[in-house]
Amino acid sequence: MKEYLAGIDVGGTTVKIGLFPRGEKASVKWEITTRKFAEIGLLWRDIADSINDKLKELGLEKGTLKAAGVGIPGPVREDGFLTKCVNLGLSNCYPAELLSEALGGIPVAVGNDANVAALGEASFGAAKDVKNSLMITLGTGVGAGVIINGKIVAGNRGLGGEIGHFTVNPDETVKCNCGSRGCLEQYASATGMVRIAKKLLAETDMISGLRRFEDFEAKDVCDEAKKGDELALQTLEVLGKYLGIALSHAILLVDPDVIVIGGGVSKAGKILTDTVEKYLNEYIHVAESRAELRLAELGNDGGIYGAAALAEELL
Amino acid sequence: MKEYLAGIDVGGTTVKIGLFPRGEKASVKWEITTRKFAEIGLLWRDIADSINDKLKELGLEKGTLKAAGVGIPGPVREDGFLTKCVNLGLSNCYPAELLSEALGGIPVAVGNDANVAALGEASFGAAKDVKNSLMITLGTGVGAGVIINGKIVAGNRGLGGEIGHFTVNPDETVKCNCGSRGCLEQYASATGMVRIAKKLLAETDMISGLRRFEDFEAKDVCDEAKKGDELALQTLEVLGKYLGIALSHAILLVDPDVIVIGGGVSKAGKILTDTVEKYLNEYIHVAESRAELRLAELGNDGGIYGAAALAEELL
Repeated sequence: MKEYLAGIDVGGTTVKIGLFPRGEKASVKWEITTRKFAEIGLLWRDIADSINDKLKELGLEKGTLKAAGVGIPGPVREDGFLTKCVNLGLSNCYPAELLSEALGGIPVAVGNDANVAALGEASFGAAKDVKNSLMITLGTGVGAGVIINGKIVAGNRGLGGEIGHFTVNPDETVKCNCGSRGCLEQYASATGMVRIAKKLLAETDMISGLRRFEDFEAKDVCDEAKKGDELALQTLEVLGKYLGIALSHAILLVDPDVIVIGGGVSKAGKILTDTVEKYLNEYIHVAESRAELRLAELGNDGGIYGAAALAEELL
Repeated sequence: MKEYLAGIDVGGTTVKIGLFPRGEKASVKWEITTRKFAEIGLLWRDIADSINDKLKELGLEKGTLKAAGVGIPGPVREDGFLTKCVNLGLSNCYPAELLSEALGGIPVAVGNDANVAALGEASFGAAKDVKNSLMITLGTGVGAGVIINGKIVAGNRGLGGEIGHFTVNPDETVKCNCGSRGCLEQYASATGMVRIAKKLLAETDMISGLRRFEDFEAKDVCDEAKKGDELALQTLEVLGKYLGIALSHAILLVDPDVIVIGGGVSKAGKILTDTVEKYLNEYIHVAESRAELRLAELGNDGGIYGAAALAEELL
């Protein structure tokens, strides 16, 4: 009888769920709405009910589901304790215990969503050929995960991979969401990219395709950069410099074999990786070779793949 | 019959050797002169001969020595390959194989000296009560080692723990030994500390006890700082700021439970840790708690202790 794992990626709007035959990349995927700020067990009951319905729909017995893994948008300690997840209104709980109970007692593991996505790329995606990798997601915010010997480095306070809050510009005057100033997230997130571009538009007279827009997103900056737009390229230069500082420090601390870049900003593709490489050359002189930069392969599914890999570790 | 491990710390001038009863911190310690730039096997034969002589002297049979660990001042890859050790004139070899052969075939493990010292503090010293730690040695240069789940994070290129070459000041105009500019080592090493103090002496009219010296060392700056000397304290402020940036990044990447500070500059003691804490508070806002800063406990013996711990892993 085939055995299955559930990979669950809890987001602020939807919960993505994948049902994976053990050891296979193929999966059945679907989404449900995230029940937020509700009584503590309800979100997990929604997820368990949805999984049980799907098993039934596929004609699979309940007993074929052997374990589940979950990615959550908040700091998860090594022991699975969730201190606070602002977006979901969850705090001070062990989500794995709650979901395990709702799923009839099967083993469940939980991790931070950026860490879990990194495990996904390390297990099934752009870094599946190496043991040590780092994935950085340049989305609305900047998250990352460090994988050493195939395992997430989460830390006892769940700070593992919090590269988004590396101070890369101590002279910055604008505050980051975290309360500090000069964090990587202020430059290398989609929001940060738009902020840099708007600053350049306001402070210079450069001709730019971006002036045609009433408002624009990171994707538009990436598109203009690909067309050779000078202002969009300068935006990427600023972003690449700070990302270069942050990644050079990560390389010199844990020496990953591969660095995977994902999230909306990574749609800039080769222009982005070339710019980051340029700055890595400037900042790293002690090594003849270093981590290879690669673009993420799993897109938005990285989370469910990583959660399935987390589940597999339990068996 | 009691079993023994050898812990070996190869330095540019002397090789420190310790003979450890398995599982005990107590050891017999001695030193021999480092044979440098010699035929490839000779250094390892010197070490093996010295260990065999010591066993004989102590009335122990050769067979009681079960394994050996070695720390080397150069980048050692995860697989034990030593690319280049400039100070010893060694390159492109597997030192563990050479020493194992000289010691009659017992298992031997090799690591970078800063990594091995970190393992020493993690196994027997200031971080022995936690699983995840980081040790930074502020000596002639700046070295560090990351310990996750009790094991060294070395990396496939041996770059693990190379915090000394984090770019912490991209605006620096003076070159680092590595060829880059603005590396932590240029500020937080003993040499760096003296450099900062001399710069402040030259650029200001501040009254300072350091003006009495014709020349001075890091130790003198630490001593003057303890006496409340304003210029020495400003030196520590500069050093603490850059060390704060570097350590904040390490905390936000691997979330160690404890950070151990060792080497000559750590003799500044509480003034140093207080200054670094101040900057960690400035740079880290995402966490309510973080790694505790502690001073190293094993002094110059950290290397042989760590090497013994490395040997124990082989059994």
